[in-house]
Parts: sequence; structure tokens; C-alpha cells
Amino acid sequence: MAETNLRCLRVASSLSSIGIGKSDVVSVLSQHSGDVRAPVRRSDVRRDPQQHQHSSRRSHRLRSSPPLQSKLLFVDDVSSRELAVEAIATMTAPPILVFIADKEEERGADVAGHANKFSYTYDELIERGDPGFKWIRPGSEWDPVVLNYTSGTTSAPKGVVHCHRGLFVMSLDSLIDWTVPKNPVYLWTLPIFHANGWTFPWGIAAVGGTNVCLRKFDAPLIYRLIRDHGVTHMCGAPVVLNMLSASQEYSQPLDHTVNVLTAGAPPHVAVLLRAESVGFNISHGYGLTETGGLNVTCAWKPQWNRLPASDQARLKARQGVRTVGFTEIDAVDPGTGLSVERNGENVGEIVMRGSSIMLGYLKDPVGTESVLKSGWFFKGDVGVIHSDGYLEIKVRSKDIIITGGENVSSVEVEAVMYTNPVVGEVAVVARPDEFWGETPCAFVSLKPGLGMKPTEKEMIEYCRKRMPRFMVPKTVSFRNELPKTSTGKVMKFVLREIAKKMGQTSLSTGPVLSINK
Amino acid sequence: MAETNLRCLRVASSLSSIGIGKSDVVSVLSQHSGDVRAPVRRSDVRRDPQQHQHSSRRSHRLRSSPPLQSKLLFVDDVSSRELAVEAIATMTAPPILVFIADKEEERGADVAGHANKFSYTYDELIERGDPGFKWIRPGSEWDPVVLNYTSGTTSAPKGVVHCHRGLFVMSLDSLIDWTVPKNPVYLWTLPIFHANGWTFPWGIAAVGGTNVCLRKFDAPLIYRLIRDHGVTHMCGAPVVLNMLSASQEYSQPLDHTVNVLTAGAPPHVAVLLRAESVGFNISHGYGLTETGGLNVTCAWKPQWNRLPASDQARLKARQGVRTVGFTEIDAVDPGTGLSVERNGENVGEIVMRGSSIMLGYLKDPVGTESVLKSGWFFKGDVGVIHSDGYLEIKVRSKDIIITGGENVSSVEVEAVMYTNPVVGEVAVVARPDEFWGETPCAFVSLKPGLGMKPTEKEMIEYCRKRMPRFMVPKTVSFRNELPKTSTGKVMKFVLREIAKKMGQTSLSTGPVLSINK
Repeated sequence: MAETNLRCLRVASSLSSIGIGKSDVVSVLSQHSGDVRAPVRRSDVRRDPQQHQHSSRRSHRLRSSPPLQSKLLFVDDVSSRELAVEAIATMTAPPILVFIADKEEERGADVAGHANKFSYTYDELIERGDPGFKWIRPGSEWDPVVLNYTSGTTSAPKGVVHCHRGLFVMSLDSLIDWTVPKNPVYLWTLPIFHANGWTFPWGIAAVGGTNVCLRKFDAPLIYRLIRDHGVTHMCGAPVVLNMLSASQEYSQPLDHTVNVLTAGAPPHVAVLLRAESVGFNISHGYGLTETGGLNVTCAWKPQWNRLPASDQARLKARQGVRTVGFTEIDAVDPGTGLSVERNGENVGEIVMRGSSIMLGYLKDPVGTESVLKSGWFFKGDVGVIHSDGYLEIKVRSKDIIITGGENVSSVEVEAVMYTNPVVGEVAVVARPDEFWGETPCAFVSLKPGLGMKPTEKEMIEYCRKRMPRFMVPKTVSFRNELPKTSTGKVMKFVLREIAKKMGQTSLSTGPVLSINK
Repeated sequence: MAETNLRCLRVASSLSSIGIGKSDVVSVLSQHSGDVRAPVRRSDVRRDPQQHQHSSRRSHRLRSSPPLQSKLLFVDDVSSRELAVEAIATMTAPPILVFIADKEEERGADVAGHANKFSYTYDELIERGDPGFKWIRPGSEWDPVVLNYTSGTTSAPKGVVHCHRGLFVMSLDSLIDWTVPKNPVYLWTLPIFHANGWTFPWGIAAVGGTNVCLRKFDAPLIYRLIRDHGVTHMCGAPVVLNMLSASQEYSQPLDHTVNVLTAGAPPHVAVLLRAESVGFNISHGYGLTETGGLNVTCAWKPQWNRLPASDQARLKARQGVRTVGFTEIDAVDPGTGLSVERNGENVGEIVMRGSSIMLGYLKDPVGTESVLKSGWFFKGDVGVIHSDGYLEIKVRSKDIIITGGENVSSVEVEAVMYTNPVVGEVAVVARPDEFWGETPCAFVSLKPGLGMKPTEKEMIEYCRKRMPRFMVPKTVSFRNELPKTSTGKVMKFVLREIAKKMGQTSLSTGPVLSINK
């Protein structure tokens, strides 16, 4: 910790001495993220201390935001360097480049080809820096601290601006909610740029933890890092759990419990059961880039330990209750705006409020006002609240398939299909149909190495035995892998386009064969 | 938790229906506290949202405070009822009384004698209350939430006003710092009124904990509660540790580890070693009623586990580093105001700043301004900062004994005397002396049941072998017990008066015999 602190002070001192200060934007280009991300350090937004009300304060700050332009760009790995140098060649005011050399790489060797008087290596910044540098606090807790881009599962990416206050509260809150002890060993299976790694870049530092980083997702590598470093904590979307428990290393259970926090989609019961049998202790939460991290988590009740494993997994798949530092979450009728009854049946739109809600979308007042209304954040997710107050997300409205007047939740169909031991990943979307309106269409990747290739008919038969007939997919399309965003979310909008291009399903109620390999 | 929530809603609803609302003051009279305490619910202070700067905001709020008058008084136990009824008999606008009946007591029987149309029992408030009550949030996070009185070790009690924001941050911070997991079992050995029980009334609720309460401090009772309820966490001044490890129950080690957080005075090495050998896992911190809780704690470094137990205890007695949610702590030269060198040698005045610093003292702008200066809190404690950033409180200036030009830390003399196995408690103060100016005077209580009664000469001899001659007490006075405040702190000002009345020590360097039993 002391060493990390000194390295941070040295880099901060160097950045300051080369002219980076308050109001300047600093960005990071990293293979780990696959995209340009722009953490904003020290406010690119004018402060206005007279504004008091949170929501008006938020929107005001964004309206007064000047155009975003990076003054410095960190370039993380070798393969991103050409991209960075090409990108800035066309700029009239290009940013200063800072190249981060890999340990294995000859220091500076590859960098030299791109270096000029406006570029540095990260090691140079550390060497030149002053460890006694007096770092500068933000002028206000409402100053922007970072700009994230949403990964765009359902729409174009948006720039999400958070302030110091929001991420401070969220960081403390997440540590408490997940009961992170002092000196954890944290493995970065969750990309740091994904909603700020759910605030654990700050949180792990706050409890004196060790960060174990990796540049690519690879199940055998992850099992090796867990063993070699005694990893205690890691985060990731359910797909991470799925990939780990589908790995060949799975046959060797872990020699210690690894706490895994998952979010981003409701984890399927079968995936939870598989991962826990390996030795992962799964916690589940819900949040969005715009809400700063996981604001809702499935707080475990001790009495649930007495239930059968499958009931436990079903309960664990609930998103749960607000974390203690968050203000409020509710499900409301979109028409009346009133809370829906908390009976586990009545579906409402999820609305949230609390300190960690974003200031707003960058240079997008219309987009900001469409989600931040009268102090509440609306993102269009829908769900029920059970009588004990636990939220359960149903599906985003786009994930409801309306077939013959029946609403089918794609998540429920997926959950059943995941119980099939040959299924690696599955995503269900709507396919247009003249007769039924829409029909469920499943895209499936099989687990590698099993050597079993079921037919579409067999998959459909599997579903028929386990769900009402109207929910059964009429189409099953096999894929080597499903298209994903850089954060590992399945891009359902891509699959919807593919399903649309398949044309209409036949008027017969039998399945249409459509095997794409 | 659900039941507690419903009980709170019912009581809140009843209070609301009998006319208690925003700006009203509600107080508690409890044997547990031994004094009238006044938790202020929902602001007795006018809000002013235009004020932005924390420090000016703080002082402004207090200057605009109307006279404090309780509208309702909770009376906790039977023995306080006569006192409450007598006290309000003389008031022109007496508060509504709410009697809290003990479980063992015939419900309402004893209450009946005092009841009138302006009094209720707590159970009535619960029965009449509406569990669906919509509770009212504070208008601003800066609204006062509670009024505590400092226990007055060195001066008259002062009313300390905290706001929602401050105690919210302090509550989260304390949970993280002590790594309190979900569903702890917390034993209330620390009085709730003592700096708000260091915020654990809120903190334990936030993690779904069980509160085990007790009305009086009694070592055998505490050991029984620990065993019967599986207590995992408790807090208290070092005297609590001392009493527990001096108890006859001490011969039976605990069957599970109990985490104890201690503060209020530097725990003596010998006391720490004794308590840890019983099975208590001790953490140590520092804070004041005015700073909202423990803002500085002795964060344990894993490499310290390899040191001998006595070295571990010495390190654990350091106050440590700021908690993650607190802003800053420093030791400054009282003359220049500059930070003293962090070398473990240079003594400075401790200054602190952060969200959890009080709004100020109630109706005492002069007192408030004497401790809150340019955004920092000054209370007059002195200490050193070690080269690794760990704070170690030396002694409050009044606890320095100046003898023959040498400064003697009473704490250091006490630490040595505690290593004597017959010593139960010890407090060292200055005794006036014509020749030396002052001399160290020790007040000692012996452990019960040992049957050993050393003479003053033997105690002095014990010290001579273990400390420089100028530090050795010239007087040792044996007592059955030492005078203490209601929070268990030794009242050194009382002992100083006793020492003064003893008259001057002899000009001889030999000890003066003074055995008071």
C-alpha cells in the first residue's frame, strides 16, 4: 500500500509538471477495455456552489460542460500503440501520449518507434516524480471524477459522468455490502472500465487489498492466478461464472473459497449451482453504469441456508434490496407513477435514487432528462418486488417476447435451457411471425470438449418437457459463440437482427430447422 | 430486522399522532446513562440551504438554534421514574412521558402510580402505531440528528450536535474499518449515549445484526451473555477489558473469538495481553464525541503478526491512521501551526477534519469557535506521528507531570504499573511539591480475591526497577476503587484534588507513606 501510494504521488507530480491540472481530461486506451475510455480527472465542468438541489445541480453541471478533449492519453499495451499514433495523427491538438510497457517487454524498445517529444513512458513518469508531492483535493465533492461509456447492449454508448461524492459513497457501500475484509486479494476478472469496476479500484485500495490484474479472459489462467495468489475476491457478469464452470479445470475444486460478486444479468439457477459446486461463493447484485455500481443486492437471510440448493439458487438470482448507503428503489406503474403492490406478481418500472446516481450524460441534456426525472432515475428495466421487499428484475421490455398474446420472458426460457448439461451459453430473442406476432428464437453455443451435438429438434423437445408450450422456442440456432459487448454482455440487438433476417417462422407450430455453424 | 423495522414504524407513527414532529426535541432518561441525554430528532435548528462551506454552515446552524426544550421524555427503568416525575413537576411546559417497562416487571403496574393523561408506556406506542407509517426524511443532510453530552473528564459537559450526513458517513466508515460482517451479534458493553455508541446503533442495524443489551456492567453477566447469545462484537473503554480479564470467569477461556473495539484511552500493554489471552480479539481506535466516533484506528499490518506478543501489544496501543471515510488528521506545532516531523519523537497538537466532525456545541458559539478553526477541529490532545504515518497519542496536556523540569507522561507510568499482577487499576496524577514543582502520585486499586496487599514501599520499589528515577511515583495511595465518570473513565480531576489536599510531598526524595483504604 505504501509503495502504491508513493507511485501514485510520483505519477501525479509528473502529470502536474508536464502541465496537466484541474479541468484537464485524461484518457486511457487499453486492450483490456477494447475501446477509448475517458476517466476525467479534476473536473472539466464549471463549478457552481450556489446550486443546492441534487437533481438541478446534476443537470446544471452538465449543461455548462465545455467540449471534451483529452490532454493526455495513456496507452496500455503494445497492440494499442499503432491505433493511438494513427488516431492522433489527424488531430490539430493531439494529446500527450504515455505508453505503459508490459513487464515482459524490453522496456522502451517498442515504444521508441512511436516516441516523440510529446510522449513518455509510464516508468518515466514514476522515476521523474516527486513522492512528496502535495496532491490536490477536488474543489467540491460534486466535481466530476470520471467519464464512463455504457456498453450499449440496447443502444449507442453514452458518456456517463460521475462525481466524487457519488463514487465515494458507492465505494464504501460496496465494501460493506460484500463484507470485504482488510487485505483482500482481488482478481480483476471484471474490466475496470465497466461502471468503474463497480468502484473496487477505490474500494480495494481502501481496505489495503492486493490487485491481481490480467489483460485477457482465460479460464485456465484465472484458475492459476486464484491458486498462486490466494485470490479471495473477484467480480464479473454471469458469463464469467459460466466460462469458469465450463472450463476443463472445473474438475479440480478450489482449495479455498473465492467470493464472487456477479451482476449485469440475472444469473441462471443452473449456472449458480455449477459455480458454487466448484468452490465459488456467489453474491448477486444489480446496478447500472448510471447508478455508480451495485445499488441493490440479494442480502442473504440465514434461514435460507436450510433450503434445498435449487431453492437457494432461485432466491440468489433475485436482485434483492437496496444497499445501506443508497436512498431508495421502487417499482412503479409507468402510467400512474404509483408504487406497484409488493406481491411478487405486479410488474413495475424500476426507479432509483441515491447519492451515487450519475450527474448525467455528457453533452446530452435530452438523454439526461429522459432518465433523471424529479430526483429519480428511470432506465426502463422492469421487475416485481416480493412481499419481503426483494426486487426481482423481470426482463427489459425489449426482452419480452409477445407470442399469440402471451408474454414470454426470454430470461425464463434461457434459465430452463441452461439446465441442459450440453448448453454453454444461450440467448433467446423474438423472431417476427405473421401468425403469432413473435416467436421465441434461441441462439445456443455448446460446451466445448463434450463431443455432444444435439439437434434443434432435441433441444426443442428438452424445452417442451420443462415449460408451457407457448414459451418453447420455435427456432434453435447453434453458434460457435454468441456476439458480445466488450464487457461480456450478449448483444441481443444483434441476435434480433439475425432472427429478423431469418424471415418469418412457418405457420405450422412445428420447429423450423436452422442450424448455423 | 423486519420486526425491528415494524416496531420503529409503529413508534414513529404514534409519536407523530401525539404531536411530535419536525423541530421537536425528544430526550431519554436511562439508568444505563446515569444522566439526561437528549437525542434531537428532526432538527431543532432552522435550515439554510444557501450556506455551502462546511465550517460556516456548521457554526451558522448553531447560532440560529432556538432554546432547547424536550417535548417528550423516554424514561427507561423503574429507578428513574421518581426522578423524572419530580423533575417535571416544577416545569411550566412539562414533556410527555413515555415509560419503558422492563420485561421482568408486571407490565404497567409500577407505571400506573405515575401515569396521567400525558404519559404512555412504550408498549402502548407500539400497539397503537401504524406499521405502514410513511416515515419522514430529513429536509437536509445537514439537519441535526442527535445531541450528545461529553462526559466531562476534564471540564463541564458540553452539548455536542451532530447532523445526519456526519453520522451516516461515520456509521459506514466504522463498519468497514472494523470489518463487521452481515448478521453480527453485538453486546452493548459500550453505553449507547457515549458518542452515540460510536455509531453502532445505526451500524449494527445496517448489517442486520442482533443487539444484546444490558442495564449494568457486570463481568459474570457479560461472560454469560457472550456464551448464551454467541456474541461476536462488543466495544468499550480499556477499563472494560481490564474488568473482564480481572474477573474470576477469566480462568475459563471463551469458546469463540469475540471482537472488541476499544478507545477512550490508550490501552495498556499488560491489559491487552491479558484480554487477548482470554480470547478477545482487540482493535483500538481514537475519536471524540465531537468527531462522531472513531476516526483513527490502529490498522493492523499482517507482518506484525510475526512479532513477539509484547511488541504486538505495544503497536496495538497506537491510535493509528485515519479511517477511509475521514478526511485528514495531523499533529501540528501549536505555535506555528505547521505539521511536526513524522518521526515518532516530535510532539504536536492533534488536528482533524472530515464529514463527521460535529456541527458545534449547543448554544455555545465561543466554545465552538475555540475548537473549530479554519475547517479543522482542535481539542488539545497531543501526540506524535511515526514515520509510517501511525498516530500515537502522548497524553492530554493535563496528564503531563512536570517534575524537576522533566516531563513525565502519566500514561507511561501507569503502563509500567499495570504490568504488576496485583494491580487492578491505576491512575497517576501530579501532586504539588515545593522542591520538584510536581511529583507523580499513583492511585491504585488491587485485583480482588488475590489476598495480596503490597505496601506502598513495595509498589515504589517495583517502579524503580522498571523506569527512570524521575518517573517513579513518590506517593502510592491504595483505593477500593477509583472514581469514574458514567462512561467508565477515571476522573483524574478528582484524583488531582485529592493529591493537592494531601499537601506537599516531603523534600526528601524518599516516598511518603499514605495508605488510604
